[in-house]
Amino acid sequence: MSAVIQMIHRGGVASAQGFTAGGVHAGIKTAGDGVFDLGIVLSDSPASAAGVFSQNKVLSPSVTLSSRRIANGNARAIVANSGCANCSVGQQGLTDAEEMTALAAAHVDVDPEEVLIGSTGLIGVELPMALVRQNLGNIILSDDGGNRFARSIMTTDTHSKEVAVSAQIDGREIVIGGCAKGSGMIHPNMATMLSFITTDAAVEPSFLQQALKDAADASFNMIDVDGDQSTNDTLVVLANGRAGGAEIRGGTPEAGEFQEALTYVCVELAKEMARDGEGATHLVEVTVEGTNTLQDARRAARKIVSSLLVKAMIYGRDPNWGRVMMALGNSGIEFEESDVDIFINEIHIVHEGMSISYLKDAVVSSMSEEEVRIRVRVGSGGGSASAWGCDLTEGYVIENSAYST
Amino acid sequence: MSAVIQMIHRGGVASAQGFTAGGVHAGIKTAGDGVFDLGIVLSDSPASAAGVFSQNKVLSPSVTLSSRRIANGNARAIVANSGCANCSVGQQGLTDAEEMTALAAAHVDVDPEEVLIGSTGLIGVELPMALVRQNLGNIILSDDGGNRFARSIMTTDTHSKEVAVSAQIDGREIVIGGCAKGSGMIHPNMATMLSFITTDAAVEPSFLQQALKDAADASFNMIDVDGDQSTNDTLVVLANGRAGGAEIRGGTPEAGEFQEALTYVCVELAKEMARDGEGATHLVEVTVEGTNTLQDARRAARKIVSSLLVKAMIYGRDPNWGRVMMALGNSGIEFEESDVDIFINEIHIVHEGMSISYLKDAVVSSMSEEEVRIRVRVGSGGGSASAWGCDLTEGYVIENSAYST
Repeated sequence: MSAVIQMIHRGGVASAQGFTAGGVHAGIKTAGDGVFDLGIVLSDSPASAAGVFSQNKVLSPSVTLSSRRIANGNARAIVANSGCANCSVGQQGLTDAEEMTALAAAHVDVDPEEVLIGSTGLIGVELPMALVRQNLGNIILSDDGGNRFARSIMTTDTHSKEVAVSAQIDGREIVIGGCAKGSGMIHPNMATMLSFITTDAAVEPSFLQQALKDAADASFNMIDVDGDQSTNDTLVVLANGRAGGAEIRGGTPEAGEFQEALTYVCVELAKEMARDGEGATHLVEVTVEGTNTLQDARRAARKIVSSLLVKAMIYGRDPNWGRVMMALGNSGIEFEESDVDIFINEIHIVHEGMSISYLKDAVVSSMSEEEVRIRVRVGSGGGSASAWGCDLTEGYVIENSAYST
Repeated sequence: MSAVIQMIHRGGVASAQGFTAGGVHAGIKTAGDGVFDLGIVLSDSPASAAGVFSQNKVLSPSVTLSSRRIANGNARAIVANSGCANCSVGQQGLTDAEEMTALAAAHVDVDPEEVLIGSTGLIGVELPMALVRQNLGNIILSDDGGNRFARSIMTTDTHSKEVAVSAQIDGREIVIGGCAKGSGMIHPNMATMLSFITTDAAVEPSFLQQALKDAADASFNMIDVDGDQSTNDTLVVLANGRAGGAEIRGGTPEAGEFQEALTYVCVELAKEMARDGEGATHLVEVTVEGTNTLQDARRAARKIVSSLLVKAMIYGRDPNWGRVMMALGNSGIEFEESDVDIFINEIHIVHEGMSISYLKDAVVSSMSEEEVRIRVRVGSGGGSASAWGCDLTEGYVIENSAYST
């Protein structure tokens, strides 16, 4: 049975029971009042924890430290900053990450080993620890502080990305909420995808790790802004069990329901990230169906949504399906060209690999909508997957070609 | 011993002995006089032939036909068109490709099985065969017709790309020349990389195939404009032996010399393609050295040169080395961050993985040059490779977001 999932109005990372959050302007980013750059999320009780991190060979020590601490399956708090990636600064990076988590631990009265860290911003410069020391203690944690935390991790994001849902699992209401920032590498230097999720469900740590991995594969791993993977990508979930009930374990009906709700939250956050890609004017959803396997559908959907030529055609509202066919052909999956049907915003434009008669003006007109959907059917197999991205605009080029100084 | 290679002024695909070429305006492209769109290259005598073709799962029948005919290692002529990719048009595509080669065969009096074909342009529309039938017979072949042929295959290229060299092999002068068009997928629909090379050296067919593959790996496979691979990519070489001498076979000193000259021609054509990428204002050369293997160096150089963020930083003349480090980390090769040195236009900016003091204004100033060189040393291994690309500009977005109609 499917979990009943309901969106929580203005929900976020502090919506689940027992979680508080907050953020301040520490001055890591040179911006005025109201621009936050340092935040904390706290569980008032022990929590299971799981994480998925960047696979880049060059890693921020913030990632290294979080990844090491989360290995035991428990954490209580997250401290995060924007403005500085704490990356490629030698040994000082780990020293600073350890100090920042120690300062946070002292502020919220937990063991430093229970504190995770996420950083995003300029690479190759050290964290301004004097500012962190001076301001971290000013973070006020509250159950309405999720937005302040979400704003603390923003870089070129034009708005904060927050979502929370409630779900019925085994007759009990649980809440899952979270926030995220930026997708793609970000002006003025490369930045990061960060996402922090909390839940009051009680979840066994090894299942939580698997569930987070599966949710990420269907969400954050299915979005693309510019094909680059940052040194700092971090996705973390804390589950403190404050909703009560027995620990959810893998292989149970409750596990399936929890997975569904967690994936839902991750997909919503991922779509917000794609929608807010640098310079983007359209959210693009590419669905590939009829493949032999789920993996094939995912591979093809990702390839299409990340093709620069497909991105540019969305911006130009051009139903230029040859580019979709080309990207599909480049994905490496097995299919017959003569089996391919393509729909743009559900208008059928290619049948059995060839153009069919359609009202081009209608397709162009439909592509003026903020969301553009491309659906590609490649056969009769059971594989199906969606990927999300944004269009490529002059705005992206302008944002990413400006000086870092 | 290294072959002595000398550039031939205004050389091209008809520079080698026994080759002629020509082109006409057939009307496949809607443009005025002087815009050619249909051309032929001919060897006056039997020639060894080798080819490298797109790996896209969706292939133009023009590619399918050429690839089939070249399998026996011989060909006499090439007919090529721009304006229409002859792709995703069902069975008609192969019928038209066969007719076009038959028309060319009749015009130059060779067996149709000895004629190869290359097409580039709009996908999903049929070749206007009436125009081909009407105009192909007007192609005048001559030994100064290489430029007319080179112009016949242009799409968004701003100029034709032609090069020829002479080389001393075993005391005998041989000539290798060729032309190429466009890199990356091209406005107003996806298009293609086409390159046609001729030589009067006598070359054994199976060695010629291996030599062409190796040359492509060091040249056309090391350039990137937008990461997409067309349905029509075609690289063909004809070797008619008119320079005299024994057939060059693999494993001999002559083979090494021929390889060197062929690779040189391919690299020069590939660089011209990168330099003329859509909207490009800079040619970018990325060299990665000190890897464990050649393959690692190639993989890393390609990853860096194709990173959108690196491309945008070149456009903005921003020595934002964090993006180079990020792309290197994403390449998947083995290295230690603390072993990485980075140079921009030979100015040392990163040492042992960290920023060093350098005059930023000087680097910015040097990036105003039309060619920007990024050199990355990742260790003390023997692997070294270069890749070429161009910057990402608003011009690219504008060219590729315009309507196909």
